[in-house]
Amino acid sequence: MAQKDSAQQTGNLMKDLTALCKNRGFVFQSSEIYGGLKSAYDYGPLGAELKRNIMNEWWRAMVTEREDVVGLDASIMMHPKVWEASGHLAGFSDPLVDCLISKERFRADKAPTPGPGDALPLTCADKGQAKTYQQLIQERFEITLGREGKTLHGLKVIDEKSFGFFPKGESEPAASFPYAGYVSPTVGCPFLSDERKFNLMFRTNMGAVDPIGDFVSAIHGKDLDKAEMTRLVEEMVKESAVYLRPETAQAMFVQFLNIQRSMSMKVPFGIAQMGKSFRNEITVEHFIFRSCEFEQMEMEFFVEPGTQREWLDYWKDERLNWYRRFVNSPEKLRLRQHEPCELAHYADNCYDVEYEYPWGWDELEGVASRTDYDLRKHAEYSGQSLTYLDPNKPDPEKGKPPWKYTPYVIEPAAGATRTVLMILLDAYRYEEKPRESAKGGIEKRRYLKLHPRLAPFKVAVLPLVKKEGMPEKARELVKQFQKDGINARYDEQHAIGKRYARHDEIGTPYCLTVDGQTLEDGTVTIRDRDTTDQERIDFDKALDIVKRRLAE
Amino acid sequence: MAQKDSAQQTGNLMKDLTALCKNRGFVFQSSEIYGGLKSAYDYGPLGAELKRNIMNEWWRAMVTEREDVVGLDASIMMHPKVWEASGHLAGFSDPLVDCLISKERFRADKAPTPGPGDALPLTCADKGQAKTYQQLIQERFEITLGREGKTLHGLKVIDEKSFGFFPKGESEPAASFPYAGYVSPTVGCPFLSDERKFNLMFRTNMGAVDPIGDFVSAIHGKDLDKAEMTRLVEEMVKESAVYLRPETAQAMFVQFLNIQRSMSMKVPFGIAQMGKSFRNEITVEHFIFRSCEFEQMEMEFFVEPGTQREWLDYWKDERLNWYRRFVNSPEKLRLRQHEPCELAHYADNCYDVEYEYPWGWDELEGVASRTDYDLRKHAEYSGQSLTYLDPNKPDPEKGKPPWKYTPYVIEPAAGATRTVLMILLDAYRYEEKPRESAKGGIEKRRYLKLHPRLAPFKVAVLPLVKKEGMPEKARELVKQFQKDGINARYDEQHAIGKRYARHDEIGTPYCLTVDGQTLEDGTVTIRDRDTTDQERIDFDKALDIVKRRLAE
Repeated sequence: MAQKDSAQQTGNLMKDLTALCKNRGFVFQSSEIYGGLKSAYDYGPLGAELKRNIMNEWWRAMVTEREDVVGLDASIMMHPKVWEASGHLAGFSDPLVDCLISKERFRADKAPTPGPGDALPLTCADKGQAKTYQQLIQERFEITLGREGKTLHGLKVIDEKSFGFFPKGESEPAASFPYAGYVSPTVGCPFLSDERKFNLMFRTNMGAVDPIGDFVSAIHGKDLDKAEMTRLVEEMVKESAVYLRPETAQAMFVQFLNIQRSMSMKVPFGIAQMGKSFRNEITVEHFIFRSCEFEQMEMEFFVEPGTQREWLDYWKDERLNWYRRFVNSPEKLRLRQHEPCELAHYADNCYDVEYEYPWGWDELEGVASRTDYDLRKHAEYSGQSLTYLDPNKPDPEKGKPPWKYTPYVIEPAAGATRTVLMILLDAYRYEEKPRESAKGGIEKRRYLKLHPRLAPFKVAVLPLVKKEGMPEKARELVKQFQKDGINARYDEQHAIGKRYARHDEIGTPYCLTVDGQTLEDGTVTIRDRDTTDQERIDFDKALDIVKRRLAE
Repeated sequence: MAQKDSAQQTGNLMKDLTALCKNRGFVFQSSEIYGGLKSAYDYGPLGAELKRNIMNEWWRAMVTEREDVVGLDASIMMHPKVWEASGHLAGFSDPLVDCLISKERFRADKAPTPGPGDALPLTCADKGQAKTYQQLIQERFEITLGREGKTLHGLKVIDEKSFGFFPKGESEPAASFPYAGYVSPTVGCPFLSDERKFNLMFRTNMGAVDPIGDFVSAIHGKDLDKAEMTRLVEEMVKESAVYLRPETAQAMFVQFLNIQRSMSMKVPFGIAQMGKSFRNEITVEHFIFRSCEFEQMEMEFFVEPGTQREWLDYWKDERLNWYRRFVNSPEKLRLRQHEPCELAHYADNCYDVEYEYPWGWDELEGVASRTDYDLRKHAEYSGQSLTYLDPNKPDPEKGKPPWKYTPYVIEPAAGATRTVLMILLDAYRYEEKPRESAKGGIEKRRYLKLHPRLAPFKVAVLPLVKKEGMPEKARELVKQFQKDGINARYDEQHAIGKRYARHDEIGTPYCLTVDGQTLEDGTVTIRDRDTTDQERIDFDKALDIVKRRLAE
C-alpha cells in the first residue's frame, strides 16, 4: 500500500483533520455564520459523542471503578475569595504590551529581546505594509527608516535603556528613544506601549445592576486623577465581581471537608471532576488544543504527608497507561518530568503526559505533586480547619495516635478537549492505492481508526435500497443494538459506497448491510472499517458477533 | 404504618431534603467555607451521579435511540451578534429599582401598585428597624412618620404622579413627593431610585486588556455629561464584550446548516444539547429550582411549515411520559397549555410540563411551538440563508417541487437541575412506626425511593466485618458488577445497620452483605431498599439476580 510521503502527510494533517471535523460533524467553529468567535468551538453530533465517550471512559476509570475516588460537579462561578486564596486573582496575570505600529498585542515576558548593538530590522508582511509602517513612523517619530522590499531598517539597540535611529552609513544616532528591552514578536518593532497587567480569568458581575451606570455616577464631575479614578472604578466593579473558574481543581479543595465527611472517606482518597473552564488566553492555537473555553478532567488525590512520592509514581503511570489503552500509536505518548525551574511554586514534583502532535511533543495532562499548599491556603483564607484526623496512625511528633494533618495532594489534571484532538490525530488515516478494478487509477481512502469504545457509532445499519422491506429489517436490527445500550445508526441516505466512505470517515467500526439476500436467507454483510473486508453473517447473530468483536 | 401528618411533612420537606442533600453528599452550597455564593450549588459525589444518570437518560431517549435527532455540544460563549438576533441583548432586560430606605432591589414591573387614595404603611421587620427607617426618612426627607410597633404610617397616594405625608388627623399633605406608581415589595416604601435597565445575561470581556484602564483613559479630563460618558464607556465595553449563554437553544439555530449538511438530515429532524446556562437572576429561590447557574436539556425539532401543531402534540406527550417513567407519583406531573397572553411573541403555542412542588404547581419543562422566528432572525442578522430544500415536496405557491422553506421549530426545553430537584422530592420518604423488637419505642426511617436507573449506586456490597476474608469476597463481587457496567459501591465503614440506613438515604436499591455464612455456604443476603426485606441468595447468582430486578 503506497502511503503518501509522511512529511507532507504530517504537514497537512491539522488542515485535513480540521476539514474532516467540519464536513463530518465533529467540530465546527462557534457562531460560524457570524464569522466565528475567537478560538471557540462547537462539538457537532459526532464530536459531542466522541467527547462524551472519552469523558465517560475517564469517569469510569477514575470514579466508578475505584473505591477511593468520588465525583464532584461544582459550579463554574465560585466565591471570589477562592481565587484570592488560590493565587489566581493576583498571580494569574500577564504583562501585556501593544506594538504602536502594527497594533499587535503580545506578552512582554515572551517577546524577543535584542541586546546592545543589535540591529532592529522591522519585518513587514509585504511591500505595501512596509510603506505604510514607514509613513506611520515618520509621522509619529519624525524619522525616516530605510526600506528594502518588506524590511525597514536603520534602528539599533544602543544600550539597555535606549535604541536609536542610525541613517545609512552614520555611526551616531540621529535620534534616540527609550527601549523596553524587547520588541514585538511579529514585526520586531521597538515602538511599544507601556506594559499592562492582564488577568487570565474572565470577570463578570453578579446580582447587581450593570455597574457601568453606577461608576459613571460615582466619578462624574469629580476632580480625580487617573490613578484615583481607576482605583475607584476597580473597587466598584470588584464589589459584585465573580470569575469564571480557570480550572476545575479549586472546588475539590473548597469542598474537601463536605465530601470527606458525607462519604466517610479515609485518606488516601480522591475527588474527581469534569467540566468547563475558561481562560482569557492571548495566544490561542492549534485548533482545539488551546482555546479560551475548554474542558477538563481533574482529580485531586489526598494522601498522608510523606507518601506523596509513591503516589505520584503510581498516578503518573496510571494516567499514561489510560491514554495508551485507547490509541493506535502508544509510542507517541510519553512522560516528561518537569525541571526544577519549571515547577509551580507550590509543587514539589510534576510529570507531564505528552503527545507528539504534528507541531512536536506537547502537553496532554499534568500530574503534579502539589504538597499541602492548596488546603493550607484555603484554611488560611476561610478560617476553617481543613485537616484530616487519622485515629489509628501515631502523630510523628507526639509518637501516638491520633494524627491530625493537612493532607498532601497529587493532581492528575487532564484536558478533555485536548484528548479529543489527540485521539482524532491518532486515528486519522489517509491512503492512496492503485484501484483493483478494471477502471484503474488511484483509489483514495480516508478513515478514522478510532478505538471502538470511543467511536461515535459502534455500528451502522444500512439497507441497500430504500424499498423491498430492507429499511424495516435494518431498523429492527438497530433496535436490537439500542436495547443493549450499543449506539447503532440507521443510515439510508446516498449510494451504499458513499455510505461506507462516510462511516469510514467518522470511525464507525462496523457496517451491517441489509440487502436482497437478507430477505431470502436471513444473512447480512458485515464490513470492517480497518480492513474493508466484508463477510456474510446471520441476521439473528449480528448483535452477538458485533458485541464480541467490540469486546476484543 | 403511621406516616407523619402530611401537611407537616410537606411543610418540612424542602428543609429536610436540603439537609439530607448536604449530609449525604448530594448538593452542597458552592464555596460554603467562604460563606457561599448567591444561589450557586455544587453537586457532591451522589448528586453528580444522580445528575449524570438523569442527563444520560435524556440523551439516550432524545438522541441515541432516535434516528431523527442528533446531538450538539456548543461553547457557552458565543458571538455577541447571536444575542442581538435572538433578542436577548435588547429584550432580556428588566427594569430594576432600589428602595432608598431598605436598600431592597426589585423589579419595577412586579412590584405592588397602590392607587390614588391608598394609604402607604411601611411594614418593617421589627421595632428596631422601624425606628431606624423612621430616622432615615426624617433625615433625608424632613418628615416624621408615625410609628406603631413595626409599622410606619402617614404616607398616602395623592394621584398617579404623587404621594404625600399626612400628619395624624390632617387631610392636607404637609409635604408631597413624586410617585413612581409602585412601592418596594417587602417594606412597601415609595421612596425609590429611578428605574434602571438590567440585563439578565452575564457579560464579560474577551481577548483585550481589562477595559477598566482603557475607559478611564478615554474619559479622564474630558468635559462629558453623564449620558455621553455612559455611552462612551458602554461602547468601549461592548467592543470586546461576550456573554454567557442564557439558554443552550440558540446554538442549534446558529449551527442548523452545518449539522443538517454534515449529517445529511432530512426535515423533520432535531438537534439536542445539554449543558450549563447562566442568568443573572434577581430572585433565586427554592434551593436548586432557580439559580444563576443552571443546567438545561434542550432540543430544537425542525419541521415542515404547517405540521407544527401535530409535532407539538407529539412532543408534549412524549416529554410528559418521559418524566412519568421515572417517578413514584405520576399524578404530580401534568401538562398546562399557555394562555395566549402568556406566549412569547415568537411562539404560536406552548405547553408546560408542570410538577406539584411543595410550593405548588410550577414549571419543569416548556414545550414551545416557536414558528420560524429563530431561523429567520439569524438569517437576517448573519446574511446567511438558513433554509431547507425539499427536492420532492411541491412548493405550495408554484405547485411543483422543489420546495425551499424556513423550517418551523418545536422546542422541548427541560431544566436538568430542576429535574434533579423533582426526582429527589418524588423519592423522599420519611416514616415512623412502632419498633417491632422488644425494646419498643418509635422506629424512624428515611429513604429515597429512586428509580433504579437514576440511583447513584445500583447496589452496595457490604462485608459484615472488616476481617475473616469478608472484604475480599465483597470486593470480588463489586468487580463483577463493575465489569458489567453496573455502578456498585464497596462499603465497610461503620456497623451494618448504619450502613443500611446510609444506603436507604442515598437510594441504593439493593444491599448485598457478605457474612460468615458466605464463606461457609456461598450465599449472601440481599436487602431491598423499599421493603427492607432480606433474603439469602447464591453468591454466584447475585449479579444475575440484581440485574434481573433492576431491569424489572
